[in-house]
Amino acid sequence: MASSEITFMSARELVRLLRTGQVSAREVLAAHLERIERANPRVNAIVTLVAEQAAEQARAADERLASGADVGPLHGLPVAHKDTHETAGIRTTHGSPIFAGHVPDRDDLVVERMRAAGVVTIGKTNVPEFACGSHTFNPLFGVTRNPYDPSRSAGGSSGGAAAALACGMHPLADGSDMGGSLRNPASFCNVVGLRPSPGRVPSWPAEAAWATMGVQGPMGREVADVALLLSVLAGPDPRSPIALETPGEVFARPLDRDPAGLRVAWSADLGGRVPVDREVAAVVAGAAKVFADLGCEVEEACPDLSGADEVFRTLRAWQFDLALGPLLDAHRDLMKPSLVANVEAGRALSGRDVAAAERLHAALFHRVREFFQRHDVLVLPVSQVVPFDAGREYPDTVGGRPMRDYLEWMASCYLVSATGCPALSVPGGFTAGGLPVGVQIVGPHRADFEVLRVGHLFERATGHGRRRPPSVEQAG
Amino acid sequence: MASSEITFMSARELVRLLRTGQVSAREVLAAHLERIERANPRVNAIVTLVAEQAAEQARAADERLASGADVGPLHGLPVAHKDTHETAGIRTTHGSPIFAGHVPDRDDLVVERMRAAGVVTIGKTNVPEFACGSHTFNPLFGVTRNPYDPSRSAGGSSGGAAAALACGMHPLADGSDMGGSLRNPASFCNVVGLRPSPGRVPSWPAEAAWATMGVQGPMGREVADVALLLSVLAGPDPRSPIALETPGEVFARPLDRDPAGLRVAWSADLGGRVPVDREVAAVVAGAAKVFADLGCEVEEACPDLSGADEVFRTLRAWQFDLALGPLLDAHRDLMKPSLVANVEAGRALSGRDVAAAERLHAALFHRVREFFQRHDVLVLPVSQVVPFDAGREYPDTVGGRPMRDYLEWMASCYLVSATGCPALSVPGGFTAGGLPVGVQIVGPHRADFEVLRVGHLFERATGHGRRRPPSVEQAG
Repeated sequence: MASSEITFMSARELVRLLRTGQVSAREVLAAHLERIERANPRVNAIVTLVAEQAAEQARAADERLASGADVGPLHGLPVAHKDTHETAGIRTTHGSPIFAGHVPDRDDLVVERMRAAGVVTIGKTNVPEFACGSHTFNPLFGVTRNPYDPSRSAGGSSGGAAAALACGMHPLADGSDMGGSLRNPASFCNVVGLRPSPGRVPSWPAEAAWATMGVQGPMGREVADVALLLSVLAGPDPRSPIALETPGEVFARPLDRDPAGLRVAWSADLGGRVPVDREVAAVVAGAAKVFADLGCEVEEACPDLSGADEVFRTLRAWQFDLALGPLLDAHRDLMKPSLVANVEAGRALSGRDVAAAERLHAALFHRVREFFQRHDVLVLPVSQVVPFDAGREYPDTVGGRPMRDYLEWMASCYLVSATGCPALSVPGGFTAGGLPVGVQIVGPHRADFEVLRVGHLFERATGHGRRRPPSVEQAG
Repeated sequence: MASSEITFMSARELVRLLRTGQVSAREVLAAHLERIERANPRVNAIVTLVAEQAAEQARAADERLASGADVGPLHGLPVAHKDTHETAGIRTTHGSPIFAGHVPDRDDLVVERMRAAGVVTIGKTNVPEFACGSHTFNPLFGVTRNPYDPSRSAGGSSGGAAAALACGMHPLADGSDMGGSLRNPASFCNVVGLRPSPGRVPSWPAEAAWATMGVQGPMGREVADVALLLSVLAGPDPRSPIALETPGEVFARPLDRDPAGLRVAWSADLGGRVPVDREVAAVVAGAAKVFADLGCEVEEACPDLSGADEVFRTLRAWQFDLALGPLLDAHRDLMKPSLVANVEAGRALSGRDVAAAERLHAALFHRVREFFQRHDVLVLPVSQVVPFDAGREYPDTVGGRPMRDYLEWMASCYLVSATGCPALSVPGGFTAGGLPVGVQIVGPHRADFEVLRVGHLFERATGHGRRRPPSVEQAG
C-alpha cells in the first residue's frame, strides 16, 4: 500500500485494516513518520518526536495482534498528543520555557485512554503558552503555520494538532477548548474538532476539578473519526467529579440522520453581536442553504447571548489565576505579557464578581435551553476571521471593527463556551484565495451525539474536508 | 384498617395497598390528617396545611386508579413539602417574613417529580430562614420541636420534615442539605435522610446552577422508602446543567447486600478533627461493632479532611451571597443576624479566596477518592451532639469545647459535604435518656446506591428506627 494512501485514510478505515492484519502498525507508523519528515518543516506542527519509542510500541502492537490478544478500537493508529496534555516519559512543555525540560511520570487521562485504546504515541503537537490564545506560537518552538498558506496562522491553541491532521501526519488528535482552542484551529486548517459538553471527556489532572469552561475533546479529518475518538475519550472516571455517566461506546453508533424535519437555526454574526469577515459570513450563509437544500427547516435565528461575554471573561480570568497563579508568582519573567495580564485580571476579581458571572451563567443557560426547544441545532461561524498573518499575535480588526484585546476576535467561539453547549467545527468551504473556513454546529445541552450526526450530514453533503492543502496536492 | 396502622406503615407497603385498591387515597389522607391534628401542635412540623386541595387530589387519584389509567410509583401518598421548595399555588415562605405571602406559580423540580409520581400534597414543613442553620425556627412559625422530647431541637433545616416523618404525619419527605440540613434532623428525629451526590437529584430553580455544595434529597422512616423516593427524584433533567445521567429507576432495585467482605472504616471524631458528645461517640462505636458482628472487615480509619473546613465555609458564604445577596440589599431588617453575617462573609471574599477553596476542594476530593479505594464505606457520627435545648440557636459547647459560631457544631456533617460524597443518616441508637442518635454512612463519589444498601443492612441488623416517639407509643 502506498504511503500516501495510508496517511490520508480515515482513522476508521485504517484501524479496520490494522485490526484485520491487512497492514501492520509498523508500516502505518513508517508512512506517517515519512509524512512528518516531509510536511512538518513547512508548518511546525509536531514539536517533539519520539520515533524510537513509537517503533517499539508499533512492534508491540503487531505482536499483540499476532498473539490473538484483544486489541483496542484505536489499535496501531499513530498520534501526537497536545503538548499541554501530560505524557509519561515524554517531554511535555505546555509551550512554556518554565516546562522546557519537564518529563511527566504519568499520562493525562485523555492520553491514558487513547493509549489504552491502542494508539502509538509519536510525539507532541505545538501549543501557545499554557494553551492561552488562539494562535499557536511560543518561545520554545516558534509558530505553527497554516497548511493551506504557511504565511498564515493555523489557529490555536490546538494549532499543532490541526495542522498535523491536515497534513496527514496522524489521523486523530486530542485537543482542548476553553474559548475555541480546538474549534478555531479546526476551522483554520480544514479539519474537524468537537468541543464536547463539560464532563463528557473527563479531565485529570485538573486544578479546577469542577470547572466547566475548559474541556478536552477529539479532532480528526472526518466527523465519524472524531466520533470514534470520542467513543474512547468519553465515559465516567472516578478522577473527575464532573464526569458524565454515559459510557463512551454510545458515540461509536452510526451517525446517519434523516435531514427531514431537522430544525436548523443559523446566524452569521450571532444575532448581530459580533463583527465577521465578509468571506466567513458567506460560508455560513452557504451552509444554511446546504441544510435548506437537504430539506431541513432552516430559520435565521440566534439565542440572546447577553451576559455571555462577562460570563466567559470573568470565569476564564478567575480560572487562569486558579491554575496559573502559583506559576506567575514563581516565574513571572518566563510568561508572555498577555498571559500575565490574564492571571492578573483574575486576581483583581472579587468573590462577588465571580458570583455575578455565575448568576448570568445560569440565566444564559436557561435562555439557550429554551431556544433549543424550538431548534435542533444552531449554525454559526467558527471564527469571525479567515486565517490571519502568522506573524501577528491576533487580528487587530475584524470586519473593519478594531479589536480591544486578543480575546475579542474569538467571541464567536467563546460566547458558545459560556452556554455550556457542545459545538462542532466542521469544514464549511474556502475563501476565493483558498483559505479554509469552518462552520460551527451547536447543539442543546449534552447533545454531543446529535451535533456529530448533523455535522456528518453536512460533511456528506459538501465534502469540503476532502480538499487537501496545496502542498499535499502538489506532492500527489 | 386502623388509622394508626396506616400512618406508620412503610411507604412501600402503603403504596402497594393504594395501587391495588386495598385502601383508597382518601382513606390514607384522612388517617394522616387525623394524625397531624393530634401530633402537630406538640412539634410544629407542618406549618401550612392544604386539606381541601389535598382532598381534591386524593379524590382525583382514586378516580384515576378506578378508571384503569396508569398511576405513579408514589400514587396516593400524602406528603408535605419542605417550605424552601416552591409549590405552585401553595404558600412557600422559605421561613422568612420576606416571603410571608409568597404563593409561587410553579413547582420546584423535586416537587414536580413527586407530584408526577402521584403524591398528594398536604402542606409545607417548617424550616429556618432560607434553610440557614441546623435548628428549625423562624419568626413566622416559631420553632419545630423534637418528637422524642419537645423541649429539644428537631434539627434543621429539614426539621419540619424529620419531625413530621417521626410522628407519622406523612411517610416520605423532600429535604435539602448543604451542611447537614437533612442528615442532622434525621439523626435528631430517628428517621432516615440521604444527602445524595451532587446532580443525583437535579435542582431547579437554582441561582447557582453549577454549585455542588447544596443538594436536595429524600427522607423517610426506612432506608428502602428513601430509596423509593430517590428513584422518583433522581435522573437527568434539562433544567439542571449538573444533573447526573443515570435514570432514577436504578434506585428502585432491591437493596440486599452481602455483608461478607464489606470494608467498613469508622471514626467517632473524624480522625480527631471534631469534638463529639460522649453518648454520640458510644453509638458510633456500637455501629462499628454491628458491622463487625455481621462479618464485615471493620477498621478505625478516616480520610485526611484537611482543608475541608475552609472549602465548606468559603464556598457556602460565597453561595449565600450569590443566592441571597440581592435580598439582603432589599430586606436587611427582615433577615436574622446569623444569616446577614453569612451573606456578608460571602461579600468579603476575593476571587482568590474562592479559587484557593476550589484548589483545596480538588485536593480533598482526590484524597477521599484514594481512601475509598481501601474502604467501601465510612461510618461517622451524623451530629456531634444529641438533640439540644430548643430554646437555643445552637449548642455553645460540644464535648466540653466552646463553639466559635453556629456552624462549628455541624462540622461532622459539613466536612462530609465538602468531599462531594453521598451520605446517609440512619437511626443508630438512643441515649440513656431516650434521645435518638444517628449514624452517618458515607460512600465513594456517586455511590448513592451502595450507601443505601449498607444503610439497609445496618437498619435490618439494628431496628432502631422502629422505636416511635414516646407520645406516639403512649397514644398506642
